[in-house]
Amino acid sequence: MYKQYCGRLDTSHKDQFITLNGWVQKRRDLGGLIFIDLRDREGIVQVVIDPEHIETNDDLSKIRNEFCLEIKGHVRLRPQQQINHKITTGEIEINANTLKVISSADNLPLDFNQNNSEEQRLKYRYLDLRRTEMSQKLKARSRITSIIRNFLEEHDFLDIETPVLSKSTPEGARDYLVPSRVHPGDFYALPQSPQIYKQLLMVAGFDKYYQIVKCFRDEDLRADRQPEFTQVDIETSFLTSAEIRNIAESLVRRLWTQTLDIELPQFPVYTYDYVMETYGSDKPDLRNPLKIIDFKRSLSSCSLGIIQESLSDENYVKGLCIPNGSKLSRKEIDNYIAYAKTFKSKGLIWIKLNNIKDGLNGIQSSIKKFLTDEILNNIIKACDAEDGDILFISVDKKSNVLNILGELRNKIGNDLNLIRLDEWQPLWVVDFPMFETSEDGNLQAMHHPFTSPKETSVDKILENPLELLSNSYDMVINGYEVGGGSVRIHSQEIQAAIFKLLHLDEDEQQDKFGFLLEALSYGAPAHGGIAFGLDRLVMLLVGTNNIRDVIAFPKTTSASDLMMNAPSSVDINVLKDLSITVE
Amino acid sequence: MYKQYCGRLDTSHKDQFITLNGWVQKRRDLGGLIFIDLRDREGIVQVVIDPEHIETNDDLSKIRNEFCLEIKGHVRLRPQQQINHKITTGEIEINANTLKVISSADNLPLDFNQNNSEEQRLKYRYLDLRRTEMSQKLKARSRITSIIRNFLEEHDFLDIETPVLSKSTPEGARDYLVPSRVHPGDFYALPQSPQIYKQLLMVAGFDKYYQIVKCFRDEDLRADRQPEFTQVDIETSFLTSAEIRNIAESLVRRLWTQTLDIELPQFPVYTYDYVMETYGSDKPDLRNPLKIIDFKRSLSSCSLGIIQESLSDENYVKGLCIPNGSKLSRKEIDNYIAYAKTFKSKGLIWIKLNNIKDGLNGIQSSIKKFLTDEILNNIIKACDAEDGDILFISVDKKSNVLNILGELRNKIGNDLNLIRLDEWQPLWVVDFPMFETSEDGNLQAMHHPFTSPKETSVDKILENPLELLSNSYDMVINGYEVGGGSVRIHSQEIQAAIFKLLHLDEDEQQDKFGFLLEALSYGAPAHGGIAFGLDRLVMLLVGTNNIRDVIAFPKTTSASDLMMNAPSSVDINVLKDLSITVE
Repeated sequence: MYKQYCGRLDTSHKDQFITLNGWVQKRRDLGGLIFIDLRDREGIVQVVIDPEHIETNDDLSKIRNEFCLEIKGHVRLRPQQQINHKITTGEIEINANTLKVISSADNLPLDFNQNNSEEQRLKYRYLDLRRTEMSQKLKARSRITSIIRNFLEEHDFLDIETPVLSKSTPEGARDYLVPSRVHPGDFYALPQSPQIYKQLLMVAGFDKYYQIVKCFRDEDLRADRQPEFTQVDIETSFLTSAEIRNIAESLVRRLWTQTLDIELPQFPVYTYDYVMETYGSDKPDLRNPLKIIDFKRSLSSCSLGIIQESLSDENYVKGLCIPNGSKLSRKEIDNYIAYAKTFKSKGLIWIKLNNIKDGLNGIQSSIKKFLTDEILNNIIKACDAEDGDILFISVDKKSNVLNILGELRNKIGNDLNLIRLDEWQPLWVVDFPMFETSEDGNLQAMHHPFTSPKETSVDKILENPLELLSNSYDMVINGYEVGGGSVRIHSQEIQAAIFKLLHLDEDEQQDKFGFLLEALSYGAPAHGGIAFGLDRLVMLLVGTNNIRDVIAFPKTTSASDLMMNAPSSVDINVLKDLSITVE
Repeated sequence: MYKQYCGRLDTSHKDQFITLNGWVQKRRDLGGLIFIDLRDREGIVQVVIDPEHIETNDDLSKIRNEFCLEIKGHVRLRPQQQINHKITTGEIEINANTLKVISSADNLPLDFNQNNSEEQRLKYRYLDLRRTEMSQKLKARSRITSIIRNFLEEHDFLDIETPVLSKSTPEGARDYLVPSRVHPGDFYALPQSPQIYKQLLMVAGFDKYYQIVKCFRDEDLRADRQPEFTQVDIETSFLTSAEIRNIAESLVRRLWTQTLDIELPQFPVYTYDYVMETYGSDKPDLRNPLKIIDFKRSLSSCSLGIIQESLSDENYVKGLCIPNGSKLSRKEIDNYIAYAKTFKSKGLIWIKLNNIKDGLNGIQSSIKKFLTDEILNNIIKACDAEDGDILFISVDKKSNVLNILGELRNKIGNDLNLIRLDEWQPLWVVDFPMFETSEDGNLQAMHHPFTSPKETSVDKILENPLELLSNSYDMVINGYEVGGGSVRIHSQEIQAAIFKLLHLDEDEQQDKFGFLLEALSYGAPAHGGIAFGLDRLVMLLVGTNNIRDVIAFPKTTSASDLMMNAPSSVDINVLKDLSITVE
């Protein structure tokens, strides 16, 4: 007699005497017998109880849903007409000999047969996780991390832990702080990533490091963000960015084959400039067939004011051609124009191509009176448009046009079901700019300040920082940025130059990063790495778009734990111990 | 041509053209050639450079220790007389074709050929980790965690992550707190263990959970403690304590075979009461042959005041018999008496057995005038003493005697080299008391308040709490507590009774643990688990007694990171954001 999982039983266990532990999923009383669907984390099996012959000390009449039971009995084949082909255990059932109630269950605050509010589900997370749909996701996550670890260990990566009680590093978001009791007035920071530690592990000579590690950002949360998230953190020495990408791509390829039995296509490598110009996003969903098209030349003879002005200034004239979009109503078009306005659009030009061969007579357009047959012809040629298409064109400065059209591309792709949902479309985005200009006009690092520029001359770096490209790469799958990384700076001079561009004077450099700069003077290896967002990878692999589905105990968008009621107030004496007071 | 680790090369690579990356361990110039010992994380190999024929753009004369190099060349056999049998690569060397300096190295602040202060070593951790002795320990740790994960996954355990931003739970030590920005005045706590989360995962039905996870205690640190430590956290449903111990023991047994090629002996299972009475410790080092012996009966006719008093009160009269201890000088004996006093000893009786057959004439003793030949005879029989032994006897209340003799046993065992250092002596300690009395006279849980008592009647639990034994177990190896756990309470009534004994009234119970008590009402499974201290396990397996040796970036005993200088002060505006001020 041995313990078995309900969900793993099948005809191969016929006649075996087994012990099961599980929960009552359903009870039916029929012809003097009690039929119980018993559930454990592996699935469900049918248990048949004959009240006349079962050995038990418990009151069978009281047993109902979510009672926790121990059942001993024999596995037997079901009669032919009772076979259930929908579940893997559907050909067998358990003829119960003994039954023990391990725990009874009060009426549950969640109803598993209907939708419960997310608030209730989070408060009673330990019950919500009993639903097969939920438990399967956490099981998949466990398997996914296991595949990742096995892959990396096969490739000589060492699992090395780095501190959680750490020091603030400039990753761009707010840190969570931890007051020190021993050093009154001082604080630790929870890491936004183990960035500097992993670089120092390279200086120490470990050359292939990985860690699956919690990271923390005190940001204003969005639906797909959590204050703590899990990173698959990888760093290597002596490899080129192409070699690092190759390892990362092989890892992701293996995840897809081993969890979904799907061979991913080769990952195309696109530059940041290309994907911004073509998709209006640095994480384009390539399942969406829409591309951004340049209409500046084809519209050049159009007398519309903003078009003419764009010829002399540097403004963009770009647009999207939506197949079969001419069926959009005037109201729908207006809605898209309004949607674009939320991204600083001043308006959109639209052209409905009903009958191309009829020329101007075959179209409708917001700028029809500024069009000629020749201009129309040029436009149609520029985008290979066909009858029934609609064009949306934005005229504005570059960054606005690309952002507006990128957002519109996503929305229209979704609305019109243009996205090929059965496909996987991974890609690499490379050659990001080193810097962008922040709202206050200062330079800020687009990745982080340890990212290597492609330029290696310190003079040239200081000369034209906004022109610099970085040796960085993001992995994007179906519009999600699942990972990102870079080759790092391993030259003290270049690192100091980058800090200088980021307005750290020498004192500040020494104060904040003196140890890093010094480390680079003792034989630092060339190194680089990548970090994957594990939560996002799991989301993609299990097919959910709610990040809370793949985390055992997630927090709300206001960073609360509704189950335990955290954060919460603490005793005044505890704060006194920490030398802090609440304002 | 392909990249290789220096330390993995051997004669099987003869004639291959390879690429190496590594650091200069040593440089010798000899007969016009340059010999470099090149080091990477896997070991060292000898590289031979002929300055006349090497392809390089670098100045060979400048290359010195800790430069980071790339070498390409052929593997060739060393001449017979140059073979070095001390290293695995000693039969071959690399005939370098090309050399590239990846990074030069300034003079190192650590001298690898002599002892450096621990402060310097921690400040320059990234250099200290270059020493083979240190890097081997972190490599071993990575391998150990891998063995643990593989074992647990083979046994159906799921790796499930629990929150770091958590709520304070009563584990007995201070929490590290994290102020919430979104909820001003509220705090998260960093977990001292994922105890409640893992219990709720059992309620959710996962039945076999594990996690290798950082835990946090803001305690006054000792040499073998760190503010953050790593726990191998395991929880199961439906298993007895013996079944849980069996899994845990198999795991540890595998660690020893796979890392040390050692078969551990079967783990004996001793009760807390037995090990306290016999070894004066709940984590006895069984490699130490000394046992505590009861002399109350054999000394009963001794007229010494405290002995006679002990007959009527409940005081203990117990001692140690030290083989060959009569060689101890009077000064050494006095030192042990003084040592015992640091553990509240009021004094020790000692008896040197020089010549047993001469009776009282053959001994020296601090209580000689109170002894008779008959008493002496009884004492000798009680402990099977032999010529040359010395006895130390303590008379005091129970807890003092056991503590004093336990500490003395350790010290004398070490001083007199009685401990069999080549042995591994694991054991289980079971049946701990549920409660102990704290200094303020209140009950406190000896493990934690979720530990199941062996008694299941609520009435009896409330009646005699200090008599209760818990269903708990510690794993001890060579005097280190490497793991501990228990069967947990899964009955709401018993859990509420235990909270009551710990002076939580119903309001406080609801406030702090309402969610747990409620969870126990919805079909909670019987469950229990164990947690191993990974750092300690690794310490034992790599043979160090310094916990900082097995942590990549450890903190000092004042919880400081000397490399990054954490904790540190933060900007006043950051604190304002968090609604806190420093006093």
